[in-house]
Amino acid sequence: MSGWPTSTRQWRVAQRPTHLPQLTGPDATFEMATVPLPSTLHPEQVLLKTLFLSNDPAPRGWIYKDLEPERLYATALNQGDLVRARTVSEVLESTSAAFKPGDLVVSMTGWTDFFIVSSKDVQLAKPLPRGLSPSHHLGFFGVSGLTAWQGLVVVAQAKPSDVVVISSAAGAIGSIAVQFAKRYIGCKYVVGIAGSAEKCEWVVSKLGADACLNYNDPNFVADLKQATQGPERAVDVYFDNVGGSTLDLLLTRMARHGRVAVCGLISMYNQPKTEAYGVKSWFDVVSMRIKLEGFVVYDVWNRRSEAADLLIKAVEDGTLVVDEQQETVRVASFEEIPKVWLEIFGRSVSGKLVTKFVG
Amino acid sequence: MSGWPTSTRQWRVAQRPTHLPQLTGPDATFEMATVPLPSTLHPEQVLLKTLFLSNDPAPRGWIYKDLEPERLYATALNQGDLVRARTVSEVLESTSAAFKPGDLVVSMTGWTDFFIVSSKDVQLAKPLPRGLSPSHHLGFFGVSGLTAWQGLVVVAQAKPSDVVVISSAAGAIGSIAVQFAKRYIGCKYVVGIAGSAEKCEWVVSKLGADACLNYNDPNFVADLKQATQGPERAVDVYFDNVGGSTLDLLLTRMARHGRVAVCGLISMYNQPKTEAYGVKSWFDVVSMRIKLEGFVVYDVWNRRSEAADLLIKAVEDGTLVVDEQQETVRVASFEEIPKVWLEIFGRSVSGKLVTKFVG
Repeated sequence: MSGWPTSTRQWRVAQRPTHLPQLTGPDATFEMATVPLPSTLHPEQVLLKTLFLSNDPAPRGWIYKDLEPERLYATALNQGDLVRARTVSEVLESTSAAFKPGDLVVSMTGWTDFFIVSSKDVQLAKPLPRGLSPSHHLGFFGVSGLTAWQGLVVVAQAKPSDVVVISSAAGAIGSIAVQFAKRYIGCKYVVGIAGSAEKCEWVVSKLGADACLNYNDPNFVADLKQATQGPERAVDVYFDNVGGSTLDLLLTRMARHGRVAVCGLISMYNQPKTEAYGVKSWFDVVSMRIKLEGFVVYDVWNRRSEAADLLIKAVEDGTLVVDEQQETVRVASFEEIPKVWLEIFGRSVSGKLVTKFVG
Repeated sequence: MSGWPTSTRQWRVAQRPTHLPQLTGPDATFEMATVPLPSTLHPEQVLLKTLFLSNDPAPRGWIYKDLEPERLYATALNQGDLVRARTVSEVLESTSAAFKPGDLVVSMTGWTDFFIVSSKDVQLAKPLPRGLSPSHHLGFFGVSGLTAWQGLVVVAQAKPSDVVVISSAAGAIGSIAVQFAKRYIGCKYVVGIAGSAEKCEWVVSKLGADACLNYNDPNFVADLKQATQGPERAVDVYFDNVGGSTLDLLLTRMARHGRVAVCGLISMYNQPKTEAYGVKSWFDVVSMRIKLEGFVVYDVWNRRSEAADLLIKAVEDGTLVVDEQQETVRVASFEEIPKVWLEIFGRSVSGKLVTKFVG
């Protein structure tokens, strides 16, 4: 082809951080590199051009300083490794009958302009209902939706009689979990936790939660106790995206035999373990017979089509909603990719944070 | 009858403690009282004389300062309440056809010389195999054995392919759990944790553990890592009796999809929650998909005969062992009852701590 690129820029790991990743200075977490690209494809390969990048907490775990690699659910990223991320890309060239130039695909490529990958590691980005942008393959119809489904349906086995609390309720996964709980499963009482009154308004009015509490409000602890007071409001399922003090507090609000789906620990990723928040409510774990279970989306990876089909159908028939707050899109140059990613720890984003990459 | 007592002494709660219960002084946790006894029984009652008292951590939870009563799995003990404990007693008088004077029975009476109770709350203490003392109805064939069975079989669902670690392995429940894991289920590798070299020797040589580590040894952390190193030794089941830093450490040693049966928190009972040890290893909970579940013996209370029969048969056929270290008996006067109970927090006891009450 005429426009075949001879090289690609990549963001790589410069050093594994102990605290919050740094953009610049001697402790910079990432570094840019330019590497040559092969001028031809092997059989069953595709050459991809990055269009959208998914921004997730997961890479923070993959670059966790001092983590033993075997304690990780995915391959760790070491110094010099390309930062992995899921992307929506355009196929520029293909030696696979399954893909042709111009196709949009979803794959795990990373922070790179271009990428050559085996066709078996690429999925076609089929058109989404209601004219939604293909970027939603990274969020609602992708890993975020699959994770929300897994946590509520597979792990917590939420049912209509359950009281459910969901933290990061305006976040990429939580905002789908709230809808799953209330609008799909029909749980009797669903409480979201989010970081502003504006987010809480969205969680209640659009996502369907019965209540949403602002953890930045000085009355948050009292409000949560009030919302979960009495046997009719004791928490059967806590979908935990944050860990830390919120988890500690929720353990004291669980119903007997309550279940905690431990999805993520956004409050704890940027500290070395020695400085991390320690969860103290173990008396409640025993006394109330609480079950806590960590989970990772790769355990249901073989069911991602099933979940995506379910989500597409639910959006088509109006059971679930994808509105403009379900996704935050940042238009970014290559240089800005790490800065946009860091926003996921800044708590200002609504829904899924996607980078629209403009070269 | 000629010896009908007109009154009984009782130990009652003087005040609910925040830290370690106190025997004397202005903060004394317990106080003695003498109360009159009725001179006749109602229909279907028995008059009991206490012979053996069970010493368990549970009452520490029931007198937990500032605990909301609805967060407890049993009725809380408040100021003035008789301290509840399971006992082996002798029937002095009975208006029930099921019991006659001289029978030995097991029931939940407490720290009292005598007690009048409904016959439906009393079980006959049937003779035990191998001439064992009826005091073992309080431990091996009673609540301790039932709890060990529940934790391993019902909660953790341990199977022969599992690597199992058990803390308080020389304690009342742990010492039975070790035998269950190794000698009954036949788990492939069983590691005990106990507080002295002498206890560890017993855990390995008599109870059947493959290894036992002394948590008071300066090399304990390194020894535990060594004992659980590599994929063949990653911990599938942790039977947790202690909580705290040991739980935190074990979370970093669990296999993928490992299960933690959270039975007790002996390291954490004597602190207010604000001062309690905080468990930090949540990254492992997610990354390794660990399942933690608190449990309480009352959830399998209706299966206690099934478990007792299983235990009796296993001791009769030699699968499980009850030797002299399985029970520590303290001969005590009424005044000494609280002091003996406090020994369970002192870590010097082997097996079940029973008070032989001599009036």
